Amino acid sequence: MTLIDLNADLGESYGQWVLGDDDAMLGLVSSANVACGFHAGDPTTLRATTERAATSGVAVGAQVAYPDLRGFGRRFLDVEPAALTDDVLYQIGALEALCRVAGTRVRYVKPHGALYNATRTHTAQARAVVEAVRAYDPALPVLGLPGSELLAAAEAAGLRAVPEFFVDRGYTPEGGLVPRREPGALLDDAGAAAQRVVRMIEHGVVRAVDGSDVAVRAESACVHGDSPGAVAMARQVRDALSRAGVEITAFAP
Amino acid sequence: MTLIDLNADLGESYGQWVLGDDDAMLGLVSSANVACGFHAGDPTTLRATTERAATSGVAVGAQVAYPDLRGFGRRFLDVEPAALTDDVLYQIGALEALCRVAGTRVRYVKPHGALYNATRTHTAQARAVVEAVRAYDPALPVLGLPGSELLAAAEAAGLRAVPEFFVDRGYTPEGGLVPRREPGALLDDAGAAAQRVVRMIEHGVVRAVDGSDVAVRAESACVHGDSPGAVAMARQVRDALSRAGVEITAFAP
Amino acid sequence: MTLIDLNADLGESYGQWVLGDDDAMLGLVSSANVACGFHAGDPTTLRATTERAATSGVAVGAQVAYPDLRGFGRRFLDVEPAALTDDVLYQIGALEALCRVAGTRVRYVKPHGALYNATRTHTAQARAVVEAVRAYDPALPVLGLPGSELLAAAEAAGLRAVPEFFVDRGYTPEGGLVPRREPGALLDDAGAAAQRVVRMIEHGVVRAVDGSDVAVRAESACVHGDSPGAVAMARQVRDALSRAGVEITAFAP
Amino acid sequence: MTLIDLNADLGESYGQWVLGDDDAMLGLVSSANVACGFHAGDPTTLRATTERAATSGVAVGAQVAYPDLRGFGRRFLDVEPAALTDDVLYQIGALEALCRVAGTRVRYVKPHGALYNATRTHTAQARAVVEAVRAYDPALPVLGLPGSELLAAAEAAGLRAVPEFFVDRGYTPEGGLVPRREPGALLDDAGAAAQRVVRMIEHGVVRAVDGSDVAVRAESACVHGDSPGAVAMARQVRDALSRAGVEITAFAP
Repeated sequence: MTLIDLNADLGESYGQWVLGDDDAMLGLVSSANVACGFHAGDPTTLRATTERAATSGVAVGAQVAYPDLRGFGRRFLDVEPAALTDDVLYQIGALEALCRVAGTRVRYVKPHGALYNATRTHTAQARAVVEAVRAYDPALPVLGLPGSELLAAAEAAGLRAVPEFFVDRGYTPEGGLVPRREPGALLDDAGAAAQRVVRMIEHGVVRAVDGSDVAVRAESACVHGDSPGAVAMARQVRDALSRAGVEITAFAP
Repeated sequence: MTLIDLNADLGESYGQWVLGDDDAMLGLVSSANVACGFHAGDPTTLRATTERAATSGVAVGAQVAYPDLRGFGRRFLDVEPAALTDDVLYQIGALEALCRVAGTRVRYVKPHGALYNATRTHTAQARAVVEAVRAYDPALPVLGLPGSELLAAAEAAGLRAVPEFFVDRGYTPEGGLVPRREPGALLDDAGAAAQRVVRMIEHGVVRAVDGSDVAVRAESACVHGDSPGAVAMARQVRDALSRAGVEITAFAP
Repeated sequence: MTLIDLNADLGESYGQWVLGDDDAMLGLVSSANVACGFHAGDPTTLRATTERAATSGVAVGAQVAYPDLRGFGRRFLDVEPAALTDDVLYQIGALEALCRVAGTRVRYVKPHGALYNATRTHTAQARAVVEAVRAYDPALPVLGLPGSELLAAAEAAGLRAVPEFFVDRGYTPEGGLVPRREPGALLDDAGAAAQRVVRMIEHGVVRAVDGSDVAVRAESACVHGDSPGAVAMARQVRDALSRAGVEITAFAP
Repeated sequence: MTLIDLNADLGESYGQWVLGDDDAMLGLVSSANVACGFHAGDPTTLRATTERAATSGVAVGAQVAYPDLRGFGRRFLDVEPAALTDDVLYQIGALEALCRVAGTRVRYVKPHGALYNATRTHTAQARAVVEAVRAYDPALPVLGLPGSELLAAAEAAGLRAVPEFFVDRGYTPEGGLVPRREPGALLDDAGAAAQRVVRMIEHGVVRAVDGSDVAVRAESACVHGDSPGAVAMARQVRDALSRAGVEITAFAP
């Protein structure tokens, strides 16, 4: 049977501020990238999210980030690699404690926002993130963009590197993502997005913005979690996968 | 052979700002209460401190605190008990990750500053701290003031409650600490302080500010770690204990 | 003609997190208590809020708070009075700079959340807030609860002390607010709340939870700004006041 | 008579953590670049520093920075220009309030650390800083590196652009600074550094690391403020200037 993982960013509320409909999303995804307090996610939010993830049978990943609440981790920070490793360790451990109390554990690591973007090409930061994961637990997979320095570093370090597909992002003919400010960067049509995921799984290709097909291999599909539209999108993707006989299941053991 | 633990607050630098002589102190104490990032201690500081503690054979405790860098955790914060439990879990887990990489682990928990003071009498906050420790690992001891709500809550929860003695603080005839703003609150004479520790261990009493003897039982003696004078004080205490045939060893397994 | 001010807490978004419908509220109130970055309100939020307030002819007040993003300033912090004075100065100045660029200025000061509650009875903190206002600009009024230590300290310092009425809070027979956890603490009926404001203005009384009338004097009425229901409530209050011939106008010059 | 300004970074303590000997430095410099809370400098530190600066007749400048306490503002942050403008306004205003209470005011603006480095070449961020200064008060000068985008943007905006000379940094033959990791980046010899300042003032040249003379024009000389050695260096520079008949006086009115 064909399998795919569905992942989304969750646990991104902070104190009084609520972001996203985590309850709805936890009924739809198989993996939750849970914020660790650096870009979002206070300890109480982390606890509630990990508890609901555990109850829902959703795998928890550590969504590690630059320390930047105000910028939501979306601004590149030129942090020294050694300090970045320490920051990632701190975040994984913090989330792990709340997972433990919730009866689950951190099952993978995925960088967030600007750190995700940076580690596509910034070798030193990519290696710094991977070094934290390896030092903490070499059995933890790293989730990231196919072709990124992050996944290359993970493989080089002997970690499991899990490539992901973006459900609602446009692809270039080279298999990269269309930058957010360019036309075709985002798909609004949930039905088309859902069909695209099925096609990627069945045929290993995605239609790029220029109409050509480009090869894409992924073990997880990323849906966004921070808007009501995201819930509808995730539901359509889930339904389309179900109709296509694809089983949604976490990639992490 | 008579045993005592010597503990001190360490890992309290933050980024560019250095506090205390951790290297010197780690050669003198048997237990290090390591800051967890809420009142002090960035991840890089925690890593360096836990690595040196591991190398020195010093037990690491999580020095959990209110989130208050600017006030160094010395200002009471009326945090809800449930949120306090989550905050303590977050801090223990964060430190644990850096301990793991350093080849050691968190062996006990001690509240810092205003949280330490609050949990002497604030039952709800005391229970909230204890609940975090119990949920995380019921084998972890809690270090605190004899007679405090904190230690009472720890015992009630089935945790090991470890009472401590303050090497350089004046005691009231009732066995409490002389408030910092009153005369006799602090002992400057390191030699006298050292002798007092030996007497406490051998006879179970300490001379109070009014000249009377008051019974004190403690498994650990706390020395301060944040001044050059603190190093000298710790060295004298260590030497006095050695001459008295008392062995300095961590209370935590 | 009878005059009243309507005030609400605004500018309480932070980075990615949005709170309240500031645009709608700025069309309804005459005074905006704008967050200053300590409990909410990043600089970009402050700029947008002060610009829209200036455009709408709404007076800007500095909504000063404890430094507590995670707790939204709703947790008492036992900060030293001198440090509190400095914190309040810092916040007023920061908001003032964004006001200046927006073509307006800070016209009054109102403590937020736990600082508001504390300065009802905590004389030292009340005086510390007032001392900041006095030192910064003795022409700035202080907005607060009738009978509070805050307003007493403001008057004693020669500042204008402006008492406010809570549109949707229940009152005790003594003229205080019904604690939030007790029955009758909050009025859900916007129409009844609006009529109550008119009655307070016309007759100087409010119906307490026990059915008795209690004397209340206020120059401003506070409506909440952080929910869609708040907008509807503010609109009803505004309409009821208009029908009663009461003009809504800022108290601050 | 020949004039020069001596500036140093001050007010960089934070809460419990002390950095530098501000009292000594305030007796030696004519301009104090005072931290504004984003990379260092809590409100109480700012108050103490501005009060002592006012008493000592030292001009206060706003040392604006990225929001990065942990990194001491020394790590590039890819903040959007509009948000950077707002952040700079917030910081200037905050410091201004504490200046006002101290009987002085903000007299110029100088970026700190990574923001200083970035605005040498990052046109958008340079303009964003300048835009904040212009919007706040176009009479405020901007202090920076000769040839930087920052000073170019300041001039283009009609602001006074004040170039500075680094007392203890090595210069390239092109008039730039030798990068910190290369040989010759830092001068240890306070006497030689002092003579170099005199020569720069009298002859408009500095000896570069390759032995050649390079033209340098500056209205201010920057000494470091964060080490005991810095005090000795500043004192020697001051004495050498005095012997050479150069008067040390603030550049800002």
